[in-house]
Amino acid sequence: MNETGRPQDILLSNPRADRVRKVAQLAGRPARLKRREFLAEGPQAVREALILHQRRVAAGEPGVVYEVYASEACLDRHPELEKLAEGTNAFLATDEVLAAIGDTVTPQGIVAVCGFLDVGLDEILDAGPRLVAVLCQVRDPGNAGTVLRAADAAGADAVILTGSSVDIYNPKSVRSTAGSLFHLPIVLGVDVAEIAARCKERGIGILAADGYGELKLDALQDQSAGRRLSGSVDASDYALESSTAWLFGNEAQGLSEDELAVADHRVAVPVYGQAESLNLGTAATVCLYASARAQQTSPVIQG
Amino acid sequence: MNETGRPQDILLSNPRADRVRKVAQLAGRPARLKRREFLAEGPQAVREALILHQRRVAAGEPGVVYEVYASEACLDRHPELEKLAEGTNAFLATDEVLAAIGDTVTPQGIVAVCGFLDVGLDEILDAGPRLVAVLCQVRDPGNAGTVLRAADAAGADAVILTGSSVDIYNPKSVRSTAGSLFHLPIVLGVDVAEIAARCKERGIGILAADGYGELKLDALQDQSAGRRLSGSVDASDYALESSTAWLFGNEAQGLSEDELAVADHRVAVPVYGQAESLNLGTAATVCLYASARAQQTSPVIQG
Repeated sequence: MNETGRPQDILLSNPRADRVRKVAQLAGRPARLKRREFLAEGPQAVREALILHQRRVAAGEPGVVYEVYASEACLDRHPELEKLAEGTNAFLATDEVLAAIGDTVTPQGIVAVCGFLDVGLDEILDAGPRLVAVLCQVRDPGNAGTVLRAADAAGADAVILTGSSVDIYNPKSVRSTAGSLFHLPIVLGVDVAEIAARCKERGIGILAADGYGELKLDALQDQSAGRRLSGSVDASDYALESSTAWLFGNEAQGLSEDELAVADHRVAVPVYGQAESLNLGTAATVCLYASARAQQTSPVIQG
Repeated sequence: MNETGRPQDILLSNPRADRVRKVAQLAGRPARLKRREFLAEGPQAVREALILHQRRVAAGEPGVVYEVYASEACLDRHPELEKLAEGTNAFLATDEVLAAIGDTVTPQGIVAVCGFLDVGLDEILDAGPRLVAVLCQVRDPGNAGTVLRAADAAGADAVILTGSSVDIYNPKSVRSTAGSLFHLPIVLGVDVAEIAARCKERGIGILAADGYGELKLDALQDQSAGRRLSGSVDASDYALESSTAWLFGNEAQGLSEDELAVADHRVAVPVYGQAESLNLGTAATVCLYASARAQQTSPVIQG
């Protein structure tokens, strides 16, 4: 920050400058993978990125925001972003430069270059998670982001994407997480059998969301509510309040036989109307909220 | 049908033919509004359209499918569609023609021209609905379709879109309903004050989904589960098992003050994690499923 109160005095105005081109390359996967960097666009995503960055830096850990590019108008509208960006490599840029950097049709005035966030499987499992969402071969960037945002809302402790899933650092995915990408740890590229084996070692139950599941989510919720509300100790098919990893499948095909095979149970989300199936985001929301509700009011149960 | 077992012998092969151009115009709103027709694309949507069509025709009512255009390959893969299309104006068409007609980048081999489906507000309210989803100023076609599909899955009796909402007959909306558009009655273009007044006359409660709501959905669910599971008659802030119209707001702004003002209660969906807010589809799913679960196992309660 300089005495004008604005990030570094240089106003980036050439959309064809080397620096600008280099940042813009992060809209593509090869550059992201090579540099382990991605773009967060818009006030909401950049705010959440900066909050995580400042928290990490304060804890003596490496930051996550490498560079910030913002228009003056955006900083005028969002003075908190200017505060949060203090101490980062922040630059003023013209709208033309921001349009060249960003992926959206309507540039939102601010873009951050962030370091990859994903951690190892052991790191999240060692933290004793109660609720984990596992996305198996999810292909649509928007869907992946939507489920991650729903998982965050449901208070999930982590999100795992298996090897053949969409790249969560894709700008469209990042956008649809609405900042949630910076809220909970993510693990990428792990095989579902590996996930299941590690969860089982730690007593974390594995439930597959599956339209043809032998257990009904409704029944599990009633059993859980019964224990909670009336102190009943009825036998249960599966205690929703226990630590659980939910497996969610591909949008079109659902979970594969191999993926279903590693689950402790297959659980059907009720369809009360005529809908043939549930949208991935809808199914994940119902399952994760069911677990969250059961867990909120119950002590930790671990197998 | 002719003796080859295929729809009318003429193979439409000229993507610039008048008939083809006329159908293609339905991708745009002016043609849709003028002709009160829209496009259903792909095997799933066309199947659901044809099922509704045949049911209506059998009941002596006007059909909903005016024309069907399909490739031979698609009918080979989906013989049930050929059966369902019997008695309709069905035509074989080349992939080029289908590409010219359809809105999707990858044509799905079959397109139906359907008549508008929306009905009047009184028609759905007179049927004594228990669960209604009201979309207020929802702007994204995919969101509107996703909520309609979730409403169908939750067994809602009707979906209402207020006047300034997106056009549900937009090809993108139709696609994201995954056939659910043909499953439950829809009402379009009604003012929210009008909806509220009519619902109140009929004893249908009005709940606004609102992040700042004074009632917590969690608490309402617990009260409802308590009544159901232990026969308690605890006082309740609002009985989720009663007939309810849920109001859902615009993706970015939520419900306006005017919209909130017509509701009996404002209900907050719990956010257990750090997410600032819920995606519209996620919020609607949680609310509608909460009502559906309460209603499934309870007798009709009407105020």
